[in-house]
Amino acid sequence: MDTILIFGHKNPDTDAICSAIAYSDLKNSLGYKTEAVRLGSISKETQFALDTFSVPAPDLAAEPLRKNHAVILVDHNEPSQSIDNLEEVNIVEVVDHHRISNFSSDQPVYFRTEPVGCTATILYKIYKEHELEPDAAIAGLMLSAIISDTLLFKSPTTTEADRKAALALSKLADVEMETFGMELLKAGAGTENLDPTDIISIDAKLFKMGSANVEIAQINVVDTSNVQSRSEEIKNAISEKIENYDLDLFVLLITDILTSESLVLALGAEQHKFEQAFSTTLKDNTTFLSGIVSRKKQVVPPLTNAFAD
Amino acid sequence: MDTILIFGHKNPDTDAICSAIAYSDLKNSLGYKTEAVRLGSISKETQFALDTFSVPAPDLAAEPLRKNHAVILVDHNEPSQSIDNLEEVNIVEVVDHHRISNFSSDQPVYFRTEPVGCTATILYKIYKEHELEPDAAIAGLMLSAIISDTLLFKSPTTTEADRKAALALSKLADVEMETFGMELLKAGAGTENLDPTDIISIDAKLFKMGSANVEIAQINVVDTSNVQSRSEEIKNAISEKIENYDLDLFVLLITDILTSESLVLALGAEQHKFEQAFSTTLKDNTTFLSGIVSRKKQVVPPLTNAFAD
Repeated sequence: MDTILIFGHKNPDTDAICSAIAYSDLKNSLGYKTEAVRLGSISKETQFALDTFSVPAPDLAAEPLRKNHAVILVDHNEPSQSIDNLEEVNIVEVVDHHRISNFSSDQPVYFRTEPVGCTATILYKIYKEHELEPDAAIAGLMLSAIISDTLLFKSPTTTEADRKAALALSKLADVEMETFGMELLKAGAGTENLDPTDIISIDAKLFKMGSANVEIAQINVVDTSNVQSRSEEIKNAISEKIENYDLDLFVLLITDILTSESLVLALGAEQHKFEQAFSTTLKDNTTFLSGIVSRKKQVVPPLTNAFAD
Repeated sequence: MDTILIFGHKNPDTDAICSAIAYSDLKNSLGYKTEAVRLGSISKETQFALDTFSVPAPDLAAEPLRKNHAVILVDHNEPSQSIDNLEEVNIVEVVDHHRISNFSSDQPVYFRTEPVGCTATILYKIYKEHELEPDAAIAGLMLSAIISDTLLFKSPTTTEADRKAALALSKLADVEMETFGMELLKAGAGTENLDPTDIISIDAKLFKMGSANVEIAQINVVDTSNVQSRSEEIKNAISEKIENYDLDLFVLLITDILTSESLVLALGAEQHKFEQAFSTTLKDNTTFLSGIVSRKKQVVPPLTNAFAD
């Protein structure tokens, strides 16, 4: 039998990479033959986590995958965020914490989404259900994923299950959660060395909303001044991407992880949908949203509603 | 907050009823306010289970449900098998063991399907995950659901997880599994007192396959001769249903639970799709399929493929 490939979404964030590694570790210890792969480059934040726990990055997936290749999706279930030939492969499992978008299967599958802050939190539960424990390195990666997705528990997506899993994992990994957490977030928060294309691509996800193509990118910073001073070149990069990929709307969230606020750039023919969703007015395609830090919980649902009108 | 309604599919079978009751019991003991309801009448088999363990049948759901009413779906996820105004209510959870058909949610939800023989098997796992145990009556209903769905472990849908759950539940319910199991299946297997409309409706499910409406009904018997002698009136009832509900194909599986064989009636404009799916030729709309006992695992997938061509 083929090796089952396990991967997170395109433009992988720390959860997409670390949950693929952790779930592969778990499945292999249950007797399956699996391998974690990735659908994009490793971010600075993720690299910091991998370096801290001395785990090599997964290989890039060799796309297109062979027809009927067995795969497990973690941290995503929407085709627009996955491999291009998803409809040709055999999805044997899904473990995720996002909305479900028109998912279908011919046969019953193991499909598990839970409304928690991070895929790694669900994986921690699955370890426990099998009466297993991740080793220190895997626990460290899972902890990194939870800290990253919940912005060290400041995001409104955070649940009691995330806190409980993170606490247990920090003990298994033998790290002090708050200290390590701030180091991890800061490692991913610098924009000084990034060019505009990187800033709008590092953590970008494409969504189908009605018939519209909406891309929502997010970047964490500890100070928005660097990005603000470069807003013209960033807007140019966004306009180019809209043109090249036929997007109806592009939203960039520049999230200050220290103050839990987001500076937002929104461009595209449907930018009025953004204004409608947030009852705001864009000035120079820019607005400021206080308390908005979660793309999934605070941006995708109101935008989806606006496009459903 | 409203009481969360928990229900299985239309034309409820023993799993649809008993898993709704069991999951409501579990959620209530976790502090939620839930109530099991049903979307149709109770079968003789299910009534036998309810009587054995002295549990009252759930009330019939008062349809249409109020807009945004919170609901939990068990043992189904396809809109065609649920309440008519499903798109208006708020689905907060799904626990199921069937294929997934174009399921979508605006927000992340608890959605859990597993490729096991019975929903009650998944519920048994969830009890264990919460370090809880069903009481004797609830355990008896969950055991009944597993015996019913797996035809006392003869169906190819049966997994090790189903056997393990059933064994544990039979101890909690204090019944001898084989003896009780045959009594339960026989209680539901008589067709003598049923009119043709009952025979084709008791366990019927509607599926969208491509653009076609396909209804697949199944009835368990211990002897096919009664049904065979009445095949003309049964075919008339099927023709009437096809006419009234604009169906493209109607398939009736008459499954002999002692021999694990099915006599099949297939009618409708698309009956050649049935012949194609099973490489068989219908004579008087009838054929015999040896070893075919599972609608879900052995009938739906090849028919879906035939309609995808």
